[in-house]
Amino acid sequence: MAEVLAGGRWTESDVIEAIMEVFPSRRDLVTLGIGDDCAVLARGERLVTTDASVEGVHFDVAWMTLADAAYRCLTSNLSDVAAMGGEPGCFTLALGLRPDLGFDEIRGAIGAMRQCVEEHGLSRCALVGGDVVRSAVAMFSVTMLGEVPEWPVVTRAGARAGDVIAVLGDPGYAAAGLELCRRGRAGESSWSRFVEAFRRPRAQVVLGPLLARARLVTAMMDTSDGIMTDLPRMLKSSGCGAELDVGAFVPDAAMAALGCELGMDPLGWMASGGEDFGLLVTADPCHVCALERAALEYGVRCRVIGRCTAERRLCWLKGGREVAMEDASFSHF
Amino acid sequence: MAEVLAGGRWTESDVIEAIMEVFPSRRDLVTLGIGDDCAVLARGERLVTTDASVEGVHFDVAWMTLADAAYRCLTSNLSDVAAMGGEPGCFTLALGLRPDLGFDEIRGAIGAMRQCVEEHGLSRCALVGGDVVRSAVAMFSVTMLGEVPEWPVVTRAGARAGDVIAVLGDPGYAAAGLELCRRGRAGESSWSRFVEAFRRPRAQVVLGPLLARARLVTAMMDTSDGIMTDLPRMLKSSGCGAELDVGAFVPDAAMAALGCELGMDPLGWMASGGEDFGLLVTADPCHVCALERAALEYGVRCRVIGRCTAERRLCWLKGGREVAMEDASFSHF
Repeated sequence: MAEVLAGGRWTESDVIEAIMEVFPSRRDLVTLGIGDDCAVLARGERLVTTDASVEGVHFDVAWMTLADAAYRCLTSNLSDVAAMGGEPGCFTLALGLRPDLGFDEIRGAIGAMRQCVEEHGLSRCALVGGDVVRSAVAMFSVTMLGEVPEWPVVTRAGARAGDVIAVLGDPGYAAAGLELCRRGRAGESSWSRFVEAFRRPRAQVVLGPLLARARLVTAMMDTSDGIMTDLPRMLKSSGCGAELDVGAFVPDAAMAALGCELGMDPLGWMASGGEDFGLLVTADPCHVCALERAALEYGVRCRVIGRCTAERRLCWLKGGREVAMEDASFSHF
Repeated sequence: MAEVLAGGRWTESDVIEAIMEVFPSRRDLVTLGIGDDCAVLARGERLVTTDASVEGVHFDVAWMTLADAAYRCLTSNLSDVAAMGGEPGCFTLALGLRPDLGFDEIRGAIGAMRQCVEEHGLSRCALVGGDVVRSAVAMFSVTMLGEVPEWPVVTRAGARAGDVIAVLGDPGYAAAGLELCRRGRAGESSWSRFVEAFRRPRAQVVLGPLLARARLVTAMMDTSDGIMTDLPRMLKSSGCGAELDVGAFVPDAAMAALGCELGMDPLGWMASGGEDFGLLVTADPCHVCALERAALEYGVRCRVIGRCTAERRLCWLKGGREVAMEDASFSHF
C-alpha cells in the first residue's frame, strides 16, 4: 500500500519503527519478520501478510465500486505472497461497513473477492474467517497465509552488485487508469486496459513462485507503491545501489497515445505510479534470458531497467552517461 | 465483537451469510471454517482468527485511551484462540490511524499490545507483520494464529443434552465498567476492578487450553458478546436447548453494591453485558468438580448456570419452575 500518512506530524515509517522497537524480531518464531512483503513463520515456511484498504484513502467510490476496492485489496495480498515466491492459501477478512451501504453493494464486494480468487486461478485460496464491523468509512483488511512448498522464499535482501534489475508486468498502467477515472473518462473503450489495470489488478501468482522455484531471481518484491518507491526499499534491504537506464522506461504505443491525449508524461506513471502489482526482481545476468522466456510464456512483459551497484546510491543513465532525474523525464527522450 | 450493525437495512448475520454463500466451507483446506471463534486449518491444527475494533463503534476515546482499545482488541483475539483450546502464536496488525493522532498516543497503543502479550504470560505470541494505513477513524484489526499442540480443538458444536453449562470469569464486570466510564465515574477507586475489566480485559489463555487438554469440556466459546447472545449461538451449533437457573446469576458483593449505587440491575450486566472474554463451556456433569477445581487453581470464578436440554429452546428456571425472562430479573430475587 502507498505511503498514505504524509503530511502529519509523523510518517508511516515512524509508526513502523515504533512497532519494531516494541516488537523486536523473534528469530525463534519467524524466519523473517516485519519489513518484507510477508512474514515467514519458522515452522513449515508459512507466509503471512496483511494489507488493508480504507475508503477515502486507498479508494474512492467516485472512481471505483466497492467491488473493485475489494478485488484490489485481495490482489494486493496475493501479490505479497507471490513476491516471496509463495503460493496463496487461506485468508481472513475484516470487513468494515458503512451502515448506509446497500446490501447489493456489500454482496458485490464479497463476490468480487471470489472472482479475484478465480480469475487468479487459485484453487487452494479460501476465505476461512474474519470479522464484520460497522465503520464510518468502508474498510477491508485481508490477512493471507501462504506456503512455499519446496524452495526457499525470495526476500528483498538478496540483490548483489552486478545483478540486473527487471520489472515484470505493466508499470504505470494502474496510475494511468486512475488518471482516467479522476477525469471522468473511465468509460472510454480505447483506454479500457488502463482502467481495468487500476480497478481489477492482477497479481503475478504464477510467475512469482515459478521464478523462486527455478531460482532465477536473487531478490523479489511487488511494485505496489511504484518502482521509485519500492526499488530503494529493496536496495536498502540488500545493501547495494543501482544504475537505472532511462531508455528502459519507454512506454508502449497505447500508453504513449494516452500520455499525448491527457497531456501527461508516461514516465511519471511508469516510474512512480503505484498499485501495479508487478514484480520487481534482481537476477544474475546469466539468468536474464531464462527470466524473459518465463515471463513471455505467461504473457507478462519483462523489462530490464538497470543493474545493481556496490556503491549505495541510485543513479539514472541515458546513453551510458549519468543524468539528473529531472533530465530523465520522457519529454527529453 | 458485539453485534454492531443493528438498525441498518441489513444485519451482521446477513453479511456473514452472504460471505458463506460465496465462500462455502472448504473441507480440504479447513477442518472448521466460518462460524466458530477461530478457523481451523487442515494442516497442523493451526488456528486463525481476525477481530477488528473501530473507533466510534467498538471504542470511544472519551471512555478509554487508544492504548486501552489496542489492548482490548488483542485480548479479543487471544480469547478466540483460548476458546478453541489453543495457544496463541504470531499475529499481524492492520493499524488505521487518524492523521491528527499524537505520536505518543500511537506509541502508547503499540506499547499496550506488548503489555497485553506480557500480562497474559505469552512468550510465543509475537507481532510479525501488518499494515499501517491512514483512516478517518482509528482502527485495529488483528489476525492471530494459534496452535493446538496435541489435543483436539474444542468447538461450539459439542454440547449434548444433559451437559451442564458453566461460565468461567466475571460476567458483567466489563459492562459495569463501561457504565462507570459513561457516567464519568471511571476514576473512583472503589469501582476500579470494573473499569479495569472494561479497559484492560484478560483472556483465559491458560484455562482454555488446560480444559481442552484435560478433555473437561464438550463445547467452549468466549463470552465476548454476553451470555444471552453467545449461549444461543453455541446451542444452535450444538443442536440442543438449555434451562438456565436464575439463581446462578447472583452478583458478588461488589457488583451488588455498584448496582445499588448506580440504580441498575446487575442481572442485565451479567446476562447481557459483552466484552468479558470469559469462557462459556458445557461439560459432562461428572466433570463439574474437576472444572471448578481447575478454575479455582487459576483464580477464575466458575459458575454453573444451567444445563443443556434435548428440546431446542432456552428457558429460565427459578426454584425449579419455569419463569418468563421478564420475571427473572434481579429485582425479583
